[in-house]
Amino acid sequence: MEKVNGQRLRETLEQFSAFGATVAGGVTRLSLSEEDLAARNEFQRLCEEAGLSVTVDDMGNMYGLLRGKKDLPPIATGSHLDSVVKGGRFDGVLGVLAALEVARTIIDRNLELDHPLMVVNFTNEEGARFDPAMMSSGVLAGKFDKEEMLRSADPDGVTFGEALNASGFLGEEENRLKEAAAFVELHIEQGPVLEHHGEELAVVEGVMGMCCYEISLHGESNHAGTTPVSMRKDAMFAAAGVLKDLQRKLLKLPDDLVFTAGRINAYPNIHTVIPNRVTFTLEARHKDPDVIRRVEEIIQGLPAEEAGCALESRKLWGRDTVVFNGAVVGAVEKSAEELGLNYRKMYSGAGHDAQFIAGFVPSAMIFVPSANGYSHREDEHTTWEECAHGADVLLNAILKLDKELSEPGQEAQEAVQ
Amino acid sequence: MEKVNGQRLRETLEQFSAFGATVAGGVTRLSLSEEDLAARNEFQRLCEEAGLSVTVDDMGNMYGLLRGKKDLPPIATGSHLDSVVKGGRFDGVLGVLAALEVARTIIDRNLELDHPLMVVNFTNEEGARFDPAMMSSGVLAGKFDKEEMLRSADPDGVTFGEALNASGFLGEEENRLKEAAAFVELHIEQGPVLEHHGEELAVVEGVMGMCCYEISLHGESNHAGTTPVSMRKDAMFAAAGVLKDLQRKLLKLPDDLVFTAGRINAYPNIHTVIPNRVTFTLEARHKDPDVIRRVEEIIQGLPAEEAGCALESRKLWGRDTVVFNGAVVGAVEKSAEELGLNYRKMYSGAGHDAQFIAGFVPSAMIFVPSANGYSHREDEHTTWEECAHGADVLLNAILKLDKELSEPGQEAQEAVQ
Repeated sequence: MEKVNGQRLRETLEQFSAFGATVAGGVTRLSLSEEDLAARNEFQRLCEEAGLSVTVDDMGNMYGLLRGKKDLPPIATGSHLDSVVKGGRFDGVLGVLAALEVARTIIDRNLELDHPLMVVNFTNEEGARFDPAMMSSGVLAGKFDKEEMLRSADPDGVTFGEALNASGFLGEEENRLKEAAAFVELHIEQGPVLEHHGEELAVVEGVMGMCCYEISLHGESNHAGTTPVSMRKDAMFAAAGVLKDLQRKLLKLPDDLVFTAGRINAYPNIHTVIPNRVTFTLEARHKDPDVIRRVEEIIQGLPAEEAGCALESRKLWGRDTVVFNGAVVGAVEKSAEELGLNYRKMYSGAGHDAQFIAGFVPSAMIFVPSANGYSHREDEHTTWEECAHGADVLLNAILKLDKELSEPGQEAQEAVQ
Repeated sequence: MEKVNGQRLRETLEQFSAFGATVAGGVTRLSLSEEDLAARNEFQRLCEEAGLSVTVDDMGNMYGLLRGKKDLPPIATGSHLDSVVKGGRFDGVLGVLAALEVARTIIDRNLELDHPLMVVNFTNEEGARFDPAMMSSGVLAGKFDKEEMLRSADPDGVTFGEALNASGFLGEEENRLKEAAAFVELHIEQGPVLEHHGEELAVVEGVMGMCCYEISLHGESNHAGTTPVSMRKDAMFAAAGVLKDLQRKLLKLPDDLVFTAGRINAYPNIHTVIPNRVTFTLEARHKDPDVIRRVEEIIQGLPAEEAGCALESRKLWGRDTVVFNGAVVGAVEKSAEELGLNYRKMYSGAGHDAQFIAGFVPSAMIFVPSANGYSHREDEHTTWEECAHGADVLLNAILKLDKELSEPGQEAQEAVQ
């Protein structure tokens, strides 16, 4: 088994932590911000220094290409350099720099691949400055309309198109990642499961499907001091009842279902006024579409009225489960196994660029542990050893895929179940 | 029994509805705003036109004084001309203009009182522009510090002191309402009880005591997609559980207890993030201090932890029950009875200037019905007939009190229970 240069990976990760470093040890590196542009420039410099040729497409996605021995579509790997406000030093950047480290290792050891190797930095994965998240991989996959994305504005009114124009990273549409033999993305788990089970790595088989609803209780505002309780249409207690009812019902579904009521707003939200409306979100994620269907049935089956308040629910959005390519998942798993790592197979509850790339390139992902399950926080943490494990698996999976897919006409096949 | 000129009262109320009139038929007449100053000027003009001499004190409270036959402290009556944003055409202004109408009627009919009659407009009762509510009656009662009140700023940064200085209604401290034989305030009920029972009027015996708590559940924020439900400290479902638990327990207390969770805030309040904190208010009001004590015991007896989240409660404030003066309440009740009105005795759940004035002047209140229990809304409504009933009772109660209290040395005594 080959291994990457863990020390060099660490040093490069530490180097990139400086781009947008926060006092508390995190980073704020919003897409196409000054800090992101500094990181992008350094990424380009390191790619070129290693011998990769760098191109940029019309969404600002960056590609560092290492030539292969044969005339084959590339094997691609990467993630994103942008972060949320006060995010961590691993989310996204690990996948980009591990991809770079894989390329460096292949060059150092003369492991020459048959396929070109493509190291990718996707623009604006976080959606923290320009909505939506996974913007540029979404455009590559045809899920988002490019013109609409260019008009997406940050809170200062600067559009993505304007920021991209000014960035120096506006390239040609013809440079887009289109055809590729495989795509593998290394990312932090952003959850507590690996740590909880004492596992070193996850072979990610897909991305959970989800649904997100907004549920409103419509009551009647009246003076808190003068309206007898029996004459009220109190949207707050009605909402509390619906939340508890939903929780009770959802806990009966398979226990790997995750469900969250993350947002709640009461109106007028004044302590002396009975709320006339309370609105909350309920989102749920699971790998099995049938479980998501049952969640939707529970929400749609809520009574039309609760405690005198009209109940209204509307679906904000949903996404289908993305099942990764069996052959690519298999190469990742075999690598983890051969490296003697303690791993589990799992579905990602979070969204990633790979879920869009999977629409047109055989894809898979690798997760490494997140301490306490934290992410999008300044204290997000993964040990250097865990980072190196992830990069090792990435390297070996690419070597395997390169071998498996190097015969002309060979494509990544779904593994036989 | 004497009666006021209901037609004139109606016309004056309609006239004052123009000061700050909103498109939807309400008024926005924030304290010391241009609209409030217009109303104040007109109030002063009408008082003087009727023969009252108008003085203003150092909080901008306005007093229209009708001389009495004897050298006695005045009998005072009034309320407030200010409103909330998009409030109604009756809250406050009814009590001021009914007081004026009582004075006009007394003058018209030569009913000459032994006591001076004092018609009062209290400044900034609503607290909608300058916090707190009942500011100026609170200063008169020594409940609020005047200097602190002068520093209270509106959302534009204008202080109450600055607004008062600029208003032309800054008078002398020596003009304050200090000693008075009695105070009676007519006000709309702001609740649905009278309408529900088909009653025309309430004799208000006091103002309910209350307590208001802020209750917080402290959980842990994590990614909604990646954190198994069993590993969460979800402040939202914990809060829903506490709300339902509180409701269940509070519903076991006497059914005239009113309790409200009017405000709720989740943090960070993003649909894809498990809330790390949910904070809501719980306030309760009842006439019996013992019932309020039991509410506080229930809140203080909440478990320290709910569903893995630490529970924290803190008292924002409380107020003791105010029991109005038995003799003044008696005069109001006797008037209602003699006028043949269908009335009930009740405690006010809302706060009013009278609750502060009651601290140093024998006081009582009169309520007239609020359609649908609505107040602080543009569709707040009380019929002209109901307004006139309220003013009739006010007139006769004042005539009775004038007679009862006119003997030198006579003061309003508590009625024997």
